[in-house]
Amino acid sequence: MRIGFIQYNVKSGDPEWNRGKTAEMLAATDADLVVLPELATSGYLFTSRQEAAGLAESLDDGPAVAVWRGIAADRNMHIVAGIAEKAGDNIYNSAVLVRPSGGIDVYRKTHLFHEEKLWFTPGDSGFNVFDVGGVRVGIMVCFDWIFPESCRTLALKGADIICHPANLVLPYCQDAMITRCLENRVFMITANRYGTERRAGKEHIFTGCSRIVGPFGQVLAEGPERGDCIEVVEIDHTEARNKALGEYNDLFKDRQIDLYELSGSAILSE
Amino acid sequence: MRIGFIQYNVKSGDPEWNRGKTAEMLAATDADLVVLPELATSGYLFTSRQEAAGLAESLDDGPAVAVWRGIAADRNMHIVAGIAEKAGDNIYNSAVLVRPSGGIDVYRKTHLFHEEKLWFTPGDSGFNVFDVGGVRVGIMVCFDWIFPESCRTLALKGADIICHPANLVLPYCQDAMITRCLENRVFMITANRYGTERRAGKEHIFTGCSRIVGPFGQVLAEGPERGDCIEVVEIDHTEARNKALGEYNDLFKDRQIDLYELSGSAILSE
Repeated sequence: MRIGFIQYNVKSGDPEWNRGKTAEMLAATDADLVVLPELATSGYLFTSRQEAAGLAESLDDGPAVAVWRGIAADRNMHIVAGIAEKAGDNIYNSAVLVRPSGGIDVYRKTHLFHEEKLWFTPGDSGFNVFDVGGVRVGIMVCFDWIFPESCRTLALKGADIICHPANLVLPYCQDAMITRCLENRVFMITANRYGTERRAGKEHIFTGCSRIVGPFGQVLAEGPERGDCIEVVEIDHTEARNKALGEYNDLFKDRQIDLYELSGSAILSE
Repeated sequence: MRIGFIQYNVKSGDPEWNRGKTAEMLAATDADLVVLPELATSGYLFTSRQEAAGLAESLDDGPAVAVWRGIAADRNMHIVAGIAEKAGDNIYNSAVLVRPSGGIDVYRKTHLFHEEKLWFTPGDSGFNVFDVGGVRVGIMVCFDWIFPESCRTLALKGADIICHPANLVLPYCQDAMITRCLENRVFMITANRYGTERRAGKEHIFTGCSRIVGPFGQVLAEGPERGDCIEVVEIDHTEARNKALGEYNDLFKDRQIDLYELSGSAILSE
């Protein structure tokens, strides 16, 4: 299977330009599965919920998914892209999986970062794994990475590959993805944007360096800190199926669930 | 609080030499809490369960804890050390916390690595947090690191500092500890051994590079790949108490427990 990412500088508040940019870069990408950044058409910074709503779109009949459906069909490609999703009165920071058939699946970001909490509704989809021609594909978005439960849930549900659209501003995620892949024996595609966004006195610098990491923690492809980039690598997804570590260990069977206490925060406040 | 690690080359099957080595290095350490490597007196490689049993000792009246009790009292120091623990008919790969008062607490390694499964009984203690003069100290041993649930459980139970005696042979742990500290906002003391152990045609090369990492992922101290080393740093343990990340996020309060599915391995086999 050929998996890849597309890294570019999303233009703040200009969905038409961004749609065109994704179309242009997708047309130059030869992959079975490709990941675009988080909020790939709207940009990241908003000044009001109303503005965010104006830049969000329906997944059923919005223009971005229409464009991606066309390309997915033409190129027989699965596309995972971050998008501000309008659904009734809610706006979600979502990622949509667009299939060559035109069918779509959606993940709605669970852990909202910073001011996203002002604009978006927390995701209610949970972490799900989708079948892509026999390969099991999970999705998380950006800040979900810092919660080990995100990848763990996806991996325990059988994900071979985790698609990870991102708008990273902190510098830690890219290396942490090596840990995530090692502990879960999965492939990870982190598609990050680059560039600087400024709105109403706020500034966010996005850190680029998109990455594809293999199930043994090996970096298979990497984008630059700044600059457009398409990277595609050929992988064998079955490497993610065998969780054995040497002769005696298994990353999943060795888990001692009865000795973990993961639900509470018992004595935190003092 | 002054926290540190001691790194040395544990001598295979020579508890007396190793006890002397730890005594000598502890006497040169000025810390409130110091961590020694895993299996600090027995060495790591065994050729039979019987041999391991012969090198294991009681925590109540064995010679290693007696030595460490003396030093802990003399220097008003808390010592965490890996030890092959004999308890009835069982041998555990344990870590003992020795207090200046002479009191001890024990953690028994949950996730046994490789041939350890042949010699040791899997730990039944669970992951517990111990009070050290108002500071909350958790313990895990070596391979526990690769299971994110180990640190997560300790952190959710309130650990400020995780003591991590290790005999690392894989090269990934040291950097992964940055991720563990970031995701849990804790301090980590990984006390690793160095050197090569050979027994009955088997060879293990231990990777040194012991580390103290801070709750924001910063490497505060680091040992060499090979060579004896004592490192001590002054820390403010309360940095681990505040899990806020910027104005809107909290590493623990933002957890969406209802959306995690961490107990099973649903569709793994195909």
